[in-house]
Amino acid sequence: MKPLDFKVNGFLFSGISAGIKKDGKRDLGLIYSEVPARVAGLFTTNAVKAAPVRIDMERIKGGFCRALIVNSGNANACTGRQGLRDAQRMSYHVAKGLGIDEKRVLVSSTGVIGTPMPMEKVEEGIPNLIERLSRDGWMETVEAIMTTDTFPKVEVSTCRIKDKPVKLCGMVKGAGMMRPNMATMLSFLVTDAGIKTSLLQGMLKEAAETSFNRITIDGETSTNDTVLILANGKAGHSLLDRMDRDGKIFQSMLSKVCEGLAKAVVKDGEGATKFIEIFVKGARDHEDAKKAAYAIAHSPLVKTAFFGQDANWGRILCALGHSGARINPDRIDLFFDKVPIVKRGMGTGPLLEERASQVIKKKAFKVIVELHQGKSQFSVYTTDLSIDYVKINASYRT
Amino acid sequence: MKPLDFKVNGFLFSGISAGIKKDGKRDLGLIYSEVPARVAGLFTTNAVKAAPVRIDMERIKGGFCRALIVNSGNANACTGRQGLRDAQRMSYHVAKGLGIDEKRVLVSSTGVIGTPMPMEKVEEGIPNLIERLSRDGWMETVEAIMTTDTFPKVEVSTCRIKDKPVKLCGMVKGAGMMRPNMATMLSFLVTDAGIKTSLLQGMLKEAAETSFNRITIDGETSTNDTVLILANGKAGHSLLDRMDRDGKIFQSMLSKVCEGLAKAVVKDGEGATKFIEIFVKGARDHEDAKKAAYAIAHSPLVKTAFFGQDANWGRILCALGHSGARINPDRIDLFFDKVPIVKRGMGTGPLLEERASQVIKKKAFKVIVELHQGKSQFSVYTTDLSIDYVKINASYRT
Repeated sequence: MKPLDFKVNGFLFSGISAGIKKDGKRDLGLIYSEVPARVAGLFTTNAVKAAPVRIDMERIKGGFCRALIVNSGNANACTGRQGLRDAQRMSYHVAKGLGIDEKRVLVSSTGVIGTPMPMEKVEEGIPNLIERLSRDGWMETVEAIMTTDTFPKVEVSTCRIKDKPVKLCGMVKGAGMMRPNMATMLSFLVTDAGIKTSLLQGMLKEAAETSFNRITIDGETSTNDTVLILANGKAGHSLLDRMDRDGKIFQSMLSKVCEGLAKAVVKDGEGATKFIEIFVKGARDHEDAKKAAYAIAHSPLVKTAFFGQDANWGRILCALGHSGARINPDRIDLFFDKVPIVKRGMGTGPLLEERASQVIKKKAFKVIVELHQGKSQFSVYTTDLSIDYVKINASYRT
Repeated sequence: MKPLDFKVNGFLFSGISAGIKKDGKRDLGLIYSEVPARVAGLFTTNAVKAAPVRIDMERIKGGFCRALIVNSGNANACTGRQGLRDAQRMSYHVAKGLGIDEKRVLVSSTGVIGTPMPMEKVEEGIPNLIERLSRDGWMETVEAIMTTDTFPKVEVSTCRIKDKPVKLCGMVKGAGMMRPNMATMLSFLVTDAGIKTSLLQGMLKEAAETSFNRITIDGETSTNDTVLILANGKAGHSLLDRMDRDGKIFQSMLSKVCEGLAKAVVKDGEGATKFIEIFVKGARDHEDAKKAAYAIAHSPLVKTAFFGQDANWGRILCALGHSGARINPDRIDLFFDKVPIVKRGMGTGPLLEERASQVIKKKAFKVIVELHQGKSQFSVYTTDLSIDYVKINASYRT
């Protein structure tokens, strides 16, 4: 297998250590498109929005983007008017250094909330960042967005659109996984496809629905969550403007890349030792399936049991009972992978429980809930809750 | 200080080890009233209800109770028809042994879900339990309901009603505290007051509203949660039948006892190192105040920060942002006890943060949130999230 190649036509990348992080690791990154790229984005629904999020939400309305500056180590959230000024100033220096319109520069931050941006370090770093820009710089930028991530999370894919080769690269930084929604997730995607902004926005939303939104809960996101896609059209095909055959090809690629990134976030969940899919089927409607799946995925008692490799299915039924989904406890079936552990609301006995215990000793497994109430289903990806999760989050700022 | 006295006119208590718990500790308890006691109860709103809960909900409609048998080590939940038969059988043996009506016997269980009740052990234990009944047996019964509790949780209070001395004793068993609602809470109260059943039920509900319901969330309770009060009238005053001056005296005592029990549950939360009151004020309405308080109290990131003694107020603002309560991030003030750590949505600087850090080093402190949106307020009691919480719950069944 040859190493992954993250070069994308017309894009340059860089990442440096500007001294925002205490440990001297890379903390400032830049993505630059040689030509104006069409841009689409999804942002946190948290009422408390970080300064860069507020700026980006406004700027992507312009439809185009030339550069994206990103930092880790400081979220620039709950920083008031000074925070907005600082985020703007970051974009100003990038625009000035690159000779482009400031309105075409986006900003993204992740890290500690409530501390003013160390602007001196940032401003000192930006010229170096610009100087280092290169076709091969992708992994530097990836490193620059990492916080508690233990490995870089990237995806790359190619397809052909109107007989032209098209490439898509994606990066994501992870999040605390007990409630993935509460720690920042940033994901940036770049492609040389040419896609009309409104179509691109729809495609990103569709892709997120089956990826990033499967590891988070509606309306419960961090102050900084951001997903951005830049499409600069350098592949040379005529602009995609509707969901025709070519549109579907790109959508499929985008959805797959986003799914890969989302799953990587779960795998690298803080302290996670297990990758668990919660699959609820037979629900009365989609909303019920979702409620049931999230009630299980968010239950600390279920998650600690998985960490302890204890097939404590009672806690799963208990979570279903207070999920708000319409259930009949006496009709619920439960499987760990293919092993039936609950039939009609009751345990299937020690022999099958023993087999189920073997399943949850694995690194990855599936919990399947059959509610027998209807035909709706929903999947969510999650992790266990480990001792390390607590350790990581108890000492995050120290 | 003389030791607390838990004798209540006309009540006998006992507790034994019947071998349900593996560690040989007391696991079977009995409360008996020499005369029919009026009874009121509150039960889990979880759709998955344990067998004894289903029986009690039916039986308290009769208005009277003579005896309550309770066991720990097995929740008799998700045990199907056999579970119902077993719970009934427990009450049958108690009724037979005491020579009373089976319909006047209540049953309560706590422990592992989904395992059949070891009925042989229970049935063998009941005669011993009855034989041991005594006026002094209260603490034995308390021990018999403990699971992961590290200390017995009891309250006692007295008052005068219509010139007669009246006594009230209460016990509670604790719960996993990260979401207190998800592990079983049992509380039993006995009094020699005489109170009409409908009034008693209203009083219990009122008392729970400012105690047990402040450490749990609506609709999210375990399969077994139960609060019962038995009032046998042995104090000899005429029956209380409305909320007059005497009614208010009893209500006030009952509310205070329940609050004491509820706080003890929090203090003994699994692995808890901190007792934290989250007090939200200035909310638009009661519902908003509640949402905001619970969003903070349930946030694993906030709770791990408290465990790490890190005054990471950004996580509190983040929780408020996704709480669903109507907020203006730029108007939020935040205090740790009396130390202002956030003013108008921004940190108050390193000096005050240092002082706030000292506050959260204490065993007990208050987080005060001023939303400046209206006049509603709500308090909830909670704990931090510790490494021990995970350890306890990862190995609960092993």
